[in-house]
Amino acid sequence: MPITDRRTLLRSAAALPLVTATANMALAQGSETASGAAAKPAPAKDVTRTLAHYLVTANYDDLPANVRKEGVRTLLNWVGVAIGGSHHQTVDIAVSALSPFSGPAQASLFGRRERFDIMNAAFINGVSSHIFDYDDTHLKTIIHPAGPVASAILALSEMQPVSGKEFLNALVLGVETECRIGNAVYPNHYDVGWHITGTAGVFGSAAAVGKLLKLNEQQMVWALGLAASQPVGLRESFGSMNKSFNPGRAASSGIFAAMLASKNFTSSDGMIEAKRGWANTISTKQDYNEITGDLGKRYEAALNTYKPFACGIVMHPAIDAAIQLRNENKLTADQVERVELKVHPLVLELTGKKTPREGLEGKFSIYHAVAVAIVEGAGGEKQFSDRAVADPTIVALRGKVIPTITPGIDPAQVDMTIVLKDSRALNRRIEHAIGSVEMPMTDKQLETKFADLADGIIPAPSIRRVMDACWNVETLPNAAEIAKMSVSS
Amino acid sequence: MPITDRRTLLRSAAALPLVTATANMALAQGSETASGAAAKPAPAKDVTRTLAHYLVTANYDDLPANVRKEGVRTLLNWVGVAIGGSHHQTVDIAVSALSPFSGPAQASLFGRRERFDIMNAAFINGVSSHIFDYDDTHLKTIIHPAGPVASAILALSEMQPVSGKEFLNALVLGVETECRIGNAVYPNHYDVGWHITGTAGVFGSAAAVGKLLKLNEQQMVWALGLAASQPVGLRESFGSMNKSFNPGRAASSGIFAAMLASKNFTSSDGMIEAKRGWANTISTKQDYNEITGDLGKRYEAALNTYKPFACGIVMHPAIDAAIQLRNENKLTADQVERVELKVHPLVLELTGKKTPREGLEGKFSIYHAVAVAIVEGAGGEKQFSDRAVADPTIVALRGKVIPTITPGIDPAQVDMTIVLKDSRALNRRIEHAIGSVEMPMTDKQLETKFADLADGIIPAPSIRRVMDACWNVETLPNAAEIAKMSVSS
Repeated sequence: MPITDRRTLLRSAAALPLVTATANMALAQGSETASGAAAKPAPAKDVTRTLAHYLVTANYDDLPANVRKEGVRTLLNWVGVAIGGSHHQTVDIAVSALSPFSGPAQASLFGRRERFDIMNAAFINGVSSHIFDYDDTHLKTIIHPAGPVASAILALSEMQPVSGKEFLNALVLGVETECRIGNAVYPNHYDVGWHITGTAGVFGSAAAVGKLLKLNEQQMVWALGLAASQPVGLRESFGSMNKSFNPGRAASSGIFAAMLASKNFTSSDGMIEAKRGWANTISTKQDYNEITGDLGKRYEAALNTYKPFACGIVMHPAIDAAIQLRNENKLTADQVERVELKVHPLVLELTGKKTPREGLEGKFSIYHAVAVAIVEGAGGEKQFSDRAVADPTIVALRGKVIPTITPGIDPAQVDMTIVLKDSRALNRRIEHAIGSVEMPMTDKQLETKFADLADGIIPAPSIRRVMDACWNVETLPNAAEIAKMSVSS
Repeated sequence: MPITDRRTLLRSAAALPLVTATANMALAQGSETASGAAAKPAPAKDVTRTLAHYLVTANYDDLPANVRKEGVRTLLNWVGVAIGGSHHQTVDIAVSALSPFSGPAQASLFGRRERFDIMNAAFINGVSSHIFDYDDTHLKTIIHPAGPVASAILALSEMQPVSGKEFLNALVLGVETECRIGNAVYPNHYDVGWHITGTAGVFGSAAAVGKLLKLNEQQMVWALGLAASQPVGLRESFGSMNKSFNPGRAASSGIFAAMLASKNFTSSDGMIEAKRGWANTISTKQDYNEITGDLGKRYEAALNTYKPFACGIVMHPAIDAAIQLRNENKLTADQVERVELKVHPLVLELTGKKTPREGLEGKFSIYHAVAVAIVEGAGGEKQFSDRAVADPTIVALRGKVIPTITPGIDPAQVDMTIVLKDSRALNRRIEHAIGSVEMPMTDKQLETKFADLADGIIPAPSIRRVMDACWNVETLPNAAEIAKMSVSS
């Protein structure tokens, strides 16, 4: 979709909330609020059933072109991060722990050779895809939408044939479900401590899998009810393997819910909205209009975004500025006298580590992030590796990065001045970093990210083939092809 | 344990809460409160680690005799209800839905012939054991403790040898863990809508399985953290199959957590007590002293109770009175002119159905419950069957049951007068019904309940053998024997 169209859509539909003291959320402050802000909460009536009715009746042909396109981009980005994370220690452990219990070898593990039953495969692929914190983001809720949904339905598509069109429709509906349910309870639900990707994500997985299982309306109500019974994830786990556990478990628990419902395992009818249902139990805010309003007209799935840099969004403006100045001026580290940064306080609060010793710590160091961006012109996973944080050139340069908290700079912004040894001063102010809703990554940039992640994990010729299969998913007779060609040799 | 000892224990340790308008909880009003009421909340420091340390160091030899005895009774009661529920439609559906995904045939399904991997087996057995709402109850929290724990470790014991003593120790520790964590957040957590059996139960399963996997302290911290990430169940699902889903899923998710932790899949260190951890996220009340106070001295596991009647506790006093008067007077239905009942308002609010048409509806009919108790002298699952509610003699008699809301009658009490056609009036006032903490079921009564549940499901000779194996669990070389002999022929 052209960027102009996308921006028009955003202005009309994306009510970005003004909330809470975390980097991702604060970044949303820069964006305009829109129609959603004025909407009155809908009464808590038939929310689950209305959503279920929509899910079982919505067809691929109903999807607007821009929604289809964003669904394809969501898929491609997810496959890249799932392959990229697949040999992290976290995944090795999960594979080792679960292999004694796996059922038939129904589904692939992206980037690996093992095959597991679809629930365990969905769990492991969901873990892989979130390990680097490099996956997609629905900025209004900070949900990472693809993890719970794509993990589930790619596994399912290896068990029962699913056409590419059916697949894309289910992916969009799953993302739509989790993001709408997330909207209904965000920010209160997130603020109190829930990892919303896991709590809303299980609905996304159940909805998408239920769609592909062709559940009837009542069965879909039950699937959503069983999903409501299995919220996953607390923010306290951030910084441990447990964070990646959450989208994985949301994926597998959603399949579990949908499979039981498909055999008429019952739940109650109003599990989302009833007095002692999900939204009242799990949040002090409930806006049901976010779930049932304009179904089939307003698409949260069209608002998905993708990270160009493998770190928290709070550092993205600075990395973006550094790469722009580097590339435009063909800068090398030895030219740099110092780098002055005007930043929002959150930048130092969240990413103030001056001397990171491990790659993971580098993700919490604005000093490292700027230095490596100038030296290597990128902010991918390789730039936050143990190798990168120990590189002498980068270590020397990070000591020259001087961030200053500056009134008037919001978290989406940065003002960077690189002072060179020849006394020149190069300035760049960023209003919206690449990867934000206002400045989406291009298809080409998504491909570069994908290739960088998959490099050395799946065979080189497969990288192009998998990307082409994702771009052309709507023409595939069976979406399982994508999973089957995404394994290591 | 002699009843007198048990009562002494209860007086010193069981602080029964005065809370909320549900039958089970209101019934607790009749009991005295004790030391717990005066305790100040402990600071939120090292709660998860303190609990983990206790779990990994606690030995069978540390268990007081009364705790061991109650653990054995918990086991026997659980096996009975798991066998009894095993052919309910809910279980048939779960077996059908999950069989395509099961791993190796590692563990038995109680009362059935199929074998599943331990996680799926634990889920299904957990469902079976809760179907009739006839399982054990920790009255202070309304947790049904055995479902999540026994389901998990009986399955595990079929995969790796577990001595009977190790097994009983793990069962007690699992029950202790879930009930203590439940105490810390009850009643607020339950009142807002959580099905506490599923939310606290996953900790019980993870702790017990982790104990048998011989996790070290750090691994146990992670297992509890991964358990905290998977709360199961909302009260809104009550009345559907989803209610039984909850203890089953707690069992399997607890195994999932412990197995990952055993391979060093990490979580954060303070997942129960941290600012954005479980207790703060899931409850507005947190009393950490309930979790870490007097570990190894105060045993919640000693306070478990067992239902003599297969229905909500609110009707138990009336059923108890009816059976006593029937047996003492050798009553038959044709002698009865009318049955006058003085009851608490909750009895009619919760069980006021006058003309139940199905067995399940009979569980919500004080009219049926009293009538069937007089006719059949029992209140087991057979007395709440479709057959029973359609029996002409019982239907006729239920029309003669006259409950009257009476000030001064609390929910644990009933005052029943059976007026006979010969004008005699038989009166019985119940202060604490059989099965309450004050009037525990005897071992003999537990055996009668077990035999009634298992009748026709497992071979007749197995019934005695399984009960003996449960009573003698501490002498078994391998606790798996119990599961292996509890299957249908």
